[in-house]
Amino acid sequence: MTSLKDHSATTQDETGSERIVISVDAMGGDRGPAAVVAGIAHSAKKNPTLDFILHGPEDELKKLVKKRRSLDGRCQIRDAEGVVKMTDKPSQVMRNGKGTSMWSALESVKQKEATVAVSCGNTGALMALSMIRLRKLPGINRPAIAILWPSSNPQGFNVMLDVGADIRADAQDLLQYALMGTSYARNGLDLEVPRVGLLNVGTEENKGFPELKEAYNLIAANADRAQFEFVGYVEGGDIPGKRCDVIVTDGFTGNIALKTGEGTAKLIGDQLRKTFTHSFLSRLAAMFVVSPMRRFQKRIDPRRVNGGVFLGLNGTVVKSHGSADATGVSAAVKLAFELAQAGFGERLAARVASAAELAQNDAAADGRDAQDKSKT
Amino acid sequence: MTSLKDHSATTQDETGSERIVISVDAMGGDRGPAAVVAGIAHSAKKNPTLDFILHGPEDELKKLVKKRRSLDGRCQIRDAEGVVKMTDKPSQVMRNGKGTSMWSALESVKQKEATVAVSCGNTGALMALSMIRLRKLPGINRPAIAILWPSSNPQGFNVMLDVGADIRADAQDLLQYALMGTSYARNGLDLEVPRVGLLNVGTEENKGFPELKEAYNLIAANADRAQFEFVGYVEGGDIPGKRCDVIVTDGFTGNIALKTGEGTAKLIGDQLRKTFTHSFLSRLAAMFVVSPMRRFQKRIDPRRVNGGVFLGLNGTVVKSHGSADATGVSAAVKLAFELAQAGFGERLAARVASAAELAQNDAAADGRDAQDKSKT
Repeated sequence: MTSLKDHSATTQDETGSERIVISVDAMGGDRGPAAVVAGIAHSAKKNPTLDFILHGPEDELKKLVKKRRSLDGRCQIRDAEGVVKMTDKPSQVMRNGKGTSMWSALESVKQKEATVAVSCGNTGALMALSMIRLRKLPGINRPAIAILWPSSNPQGFNVMLDVGADIRADAQDLLQYALMGTSYARNGLDLEVPRVGLLNVGTEENKGFPELKEAYNLIAANADRAQFEFVGYVEGGDIPGKRCDVIVTDGFTGNIALKTGEGTAKLIGDQLRKTFTHSFLSRLAAMFVVSPMRRFQKRIDPRRVNGGVFLGLNGTVVKSHGSADATGVSAAVKLAFELAQAGFGERLAARVASAAELAQNDAAADGRDAQDKSKT
Repeated sequence: MTSLKDHSATTQDETGSERIVISVDAMGGDRGPAAVVAGIAHSAKKNPTLDFILHGPEDELKKLVKKRRSLDGRCQIRDAEGVVKMTDKPSQVMRNGKGTSMWSALESVKQKEATVAVSCGNTGALMALSMIRLRKLPGINRPAIAILWPSSNPQGFNVMLDVGADIRADAQDLLQYALMGTSYARNGLDLEVPRVGLLNVGTEENKGFPELKEAYNLIAANADRAQFEFVGYVEGGDIPGKRCDVIVTDGFTGNIALKTGEGTAKLIGDQLRKTFTHSFLSRLAAMFVVSPMRRFQKRIDPRRVNGGVFLGLNGTVVKSHGSADATGVSAAVKLAFELAQAGFGERLAARVASAAELAQNDAAADGRDAQDKSKT
């Protein structure tokens, strides 16, 4: 990435390198804190300017961290005994979440000790806690979860949002998703003018619900000044395709598309494995394809693009898969690191603020227009 | 399939075999009538009891059919000069569709000359024409398009509906989809008691829209007497999975899931091809995997499961992909043949009629209950 230099939420170490601090919830994932610590240890090795604040039961975490030399002096532990379970309801967690590792991980971002928080825990609870601890950015109605989806575009990925922060989204929300998705694509995929598409069941302008048509007009009207290109409606096939870089949709549709895509990839992966263990001859054949197959699997491995980003809050939160192993956690931390390095949080806030201001100016201008017209 | 014997919409030939007649729209697909004729010729070879009525410009079709020995004496041609284009709007086609090959293909089913119609043409127009020519089954509010989706279930496929007949569906519609999907799974996949799931963003009962909860209760209440098992809410990942056999959803969500899955499979296929042409060594490796890879590709080849079925009409219509080649057309014809052989149309009509009757009885009983209660 080239545009990562001008940021603020970092400190410098004695050698003058900028240090990035990531806040990590050690608990709540399906594989427990050992996988999380193994993941951050791997990331620490790869990125010498990265430090961690790790949240969870102190004694347990101390033992795990001690075993990892790469974390030596680079990982603070914050004791938090409570754990948000996968089965906990967000509403319960909002009332009783204080004292959990998830709450504590968000607190470090709120207090600006860390730039980004990472958690493998319960998505609904994490979003609910993020909303009450970090609060929505001024001008944002519904925050969204954005993911990177493998695509045939040159950058290798597309951004899709919302994939499940909220099941509803009106036209204004979808416009905000377009703005936030643009910001993410610019900072996360290094695209100067991202192409934005609105997900629908056909590309013709007359297709779909009236609400979508309203969003279409609103997004089209804001494309120029927000410096994205609006390609209009896109279909499910364009999510992994190259017609656009950012796919905007409501959280219900986005969540189902995401899980359908993941399920389809998993089915194909399983079938492929069966293909190569089908007979002695095909097992022999498989030996010849180990290296190209590895390259392929690395390319589509969902663990390597692990991490939904919560957008629209005062602070960035990366949600890793609940089933993430060390590789998955490390991928989520890498994403958090890159976003922190890019000063993504501040950039997004600035973009949303200027959009809200423009909208207000527009409304004022419309008001004046209406007055002018009423005079004539 | 074992349960295909007791049907009615067939005739017997001089040898006593039952002959099945399929009505085929030769026009409107992306690859023109040559691909369609090649496809039906292939099907004719495979199924000696299969006859065709082919619709389109007589002179052109005569030439194409003459070249195929397997179609000798087994393919009537119905002259129709008009063609419904992919870009035509359904509303226009409803007004001006008479005289097109699509209209003519449906007419053969309406007149009971053929059991099932097959078309590669414009989906929206085909649904619109099917609605006005064949009419909805009594008791059906919204017809649906059902597809077979490769899955990890023993039968290798799941049924999903609606994938785009209509963008909306209320609770009653979703119940009807569950009933029709059950019928399709029983006749098309030979499952005695199909497991039905309702697509949502989580499996917990409290997730999703209130409208979905209403559908949940309605489907649960009808499972026993309609002889399906209701597994409750399912997620996108269950569409290619093994939690259920029939996935029920509205046409907006279903269409986006379908196209996302297809797009993801295509992306993976493209990546896999690149993997094996990446270097000389990997091309060499590819030689060793030709046979297992072929087996794999056959398994996930979308052309081999080509065909959405329109359910809820007086007559069955199979919609093949617009881009279907001979293999794709032949797969759609195979599906049409199997459904015709199973007497699927009559079975579905009987099931919907009995469900409507039961619902009426229920309503009457509820009315009596209410009266009884008002007396006490």
